[in-house]
Amino acid sequence: MTPRALPSWNDTAPAKAIIAFVEKVTKEGTADFVPPAERIAVFDNDGTLWPEYPLVGQLAFILDELKRRIPTEPALAADPMVQAALAVDLAKLLEGKHHDGLMRILALTLTGMTTEEFRSNVEAWLVSAKHPKYGKPYDQVIYQPMLEVLRYLRANDFKTFIVSGGGADFMRIWVEGVYGIPPEQVVGSTSRTTFEVRDSGPVLVKTLDYLFVDDKVGKPVGIHQFIGRRPIACFGNSDGDQAMLQYTTINNPRPSFGLIVHHTDGEREFAYDASAPWGALVDALKEAAQRGWTVLDMKNDWKRVFAFDQ
Amino acid sequence: MTPRALPSWNDTAPAKAIIAFVEKVTKEGTADFVPPAERIAVFDNDGTLWPEYPLVGQLAFILDELKRRIPTEPALAADPMVQAALAVDLAKLLEGKHHDGLMRILALTLTGMTTEEFRSNVEAWLVSAKHPKYGKPYDQVIYQPMLEVLRYLRANDFKTFIVSGGGADFMRIWVEGVYGIPPEQVVGSTSRTTFEVRDSGPVLVKTLDYLFVDDKVGKPVGIHQFIGRRPIACFGNSDGDQAMLQYTTINNPRPSFGLIVHHTDGEREFAYDASAPWGALVDALKEAAQRGWTVLDMKNDWKRVFAFDQ
Repeated sequence: MTPRALPSWNDTAPAKAIIAFVEKVTKEGTADFVPPAERIAVFDNDGTLWPEYPLVGQLAFILDELKRRIPTEPALAADPMVQAALAVDLAKLLEGKHHDGLMRILALTLTGMTTEEFRSNVEAWLVSAKHPKYGKPYDQVIYQPMLEVLRYLRANDFKTFIVSGGGADFMRIWVEGVYGIPPEQVVGSTSRTTFEVRDSGPVLVKTLDYLFVDDKVGKPVGIHQFIGRRPIACFGNSDGDQAMLQYTTINNPRPSFGLIVHHTDGEREFAYDASAPWGALVDALKEAAQRGWTVLDMKNDWKRVFAFDQ
Repeated sequence: MTPRALPSWNDTAPAKAIIAFVEKVTKEGTADFVPPAERIAVFDNDGTLWPEYPLVGQLAFILDELKRRIPTEPALAADPMVQAALAVDLAKLLEGKHHDGLMRILALTLTGMTTEEFRSNVEAWLVSAKHPKYGKPYDQVIYQPMLEVLRYLRANDFKTFIVSGGGADFMRIWVEGVYGIPPEQVVGSTSRTTFEVRDSGPVLVKTLDYLFVDDKVGKPVGIHQFIGRRPIACFGNSDGDQAMLQYTTINNPRPSFGLIVHHTDGEREFAYDASAPWGALVDALKEAAQRGWTVLDMKNDWKRVFAFDQ
């Protein structure tokens, strides 16, 4: 049997738990009823709405940007940190207290241009780049079951937000078309822009100043700063989501729901998250039972993973 | 005659301009049609939705907080910057490159507590404090004609945002009830919180770290960072709103609208903004004609200013 609201899910505990929660908080006249304005649901992106393994989508974009520019920018080719990035030598990029190598790569690919120029770069990349495993554009490699959760929640007057370590500027370009989430409901890593009025009109130039990394304890901080309201539902997949799962579910005066996407499917996706070397889910999994967070086993609980799966 | 959608407005140029703009962008099948998702309208708060003269509401809160705490905190009474604040000695508070005095006052009244404790402080203040001219709680001293604009825009599928120099945490507590604007549509001055899980549950503790002042060129920067989409309508009242008026209206590929609230009514409100010493509107007024911004003359264009006016 298939839950009618979630057709790509098996009729196992996670789908039942999602539906039971939504039915509980939308039933008027009960103590558990939550007014629509407070039905805030937050979703991590990388690993929760689309794959993060073997490479987070935004890192793929960054590497492709370097490759695209190297033929016409010899200084770039000679840069040791660019070479480290292209070799995916994370140890070198993360060296030092301030991760100077990584910061340099981010500065090279995410700053110095206007927000509109950056938009063009990302849009061109989405058209040309292909996911290494599936051979499809990244914005088609999306977890179909999670799209169904987003739609089901919105049909029940939830407001759905992304809360991700990815760059807000990067995600906002494509998430509306893909997830139905407008840019103003995307909380991500950000840094400031500078405002200028040029002959062509006003522009915002991207910098790395005041970098805010929306990950780990940064996630509840970002939720407060951008949304200003405590969520009642939280969907994540890694230790980076642990703090926002805590913020959503521990002693929340409203009923609340937490779910962890556990990457167990080595065939349709990747089985990588519960052990070394990736081990993205070590602490959060330990805490799940204690907190009552639902653990979704991708292999067993999802009828299909992507829209293009049979 | 009264515009039906804006009953507190006289049937003069500003009301006509607002209605003409809304009718233009909502007419399907025309080149000027703007899809609902892009109908972003931004409103300054102080001086645009509620009075800012003789004292911005949040400063009144800050002074009242100091007065409330002084009887039980002798160190506070002895602090020279607290004394300067209570004497409204702005020159002393703003001394030095980093405005150390002002920062100290902000730190004393806006930081160190959890976001929930801060909420309690603001809620208690809203119940007890009275506006010096009108003798009413601050959240009742609201421009009725602007409430009508907010409702009219929302009825036409605009999404209304506040973009204000005021603190986001301060505004979000009361703007939903007063303006119908939810916390997640409030862009204001912010600083970071720190996340902790205490025995009582998760808390966010307010700090002044990474202070972002959402004023002047900070307004388009804040709009990009929090909304991620260029507005098509902008309502402001001072030079602090000039940059976001520029960002909204200059070479916007969509039709756009800018309006300046000009404080000309010395009886029902205050006439203060076009000349020294306050002079809040000197540059923006000069630019209005060139840019086609509508200048609203409060005395002549508004039938009433507050809901409690006859």
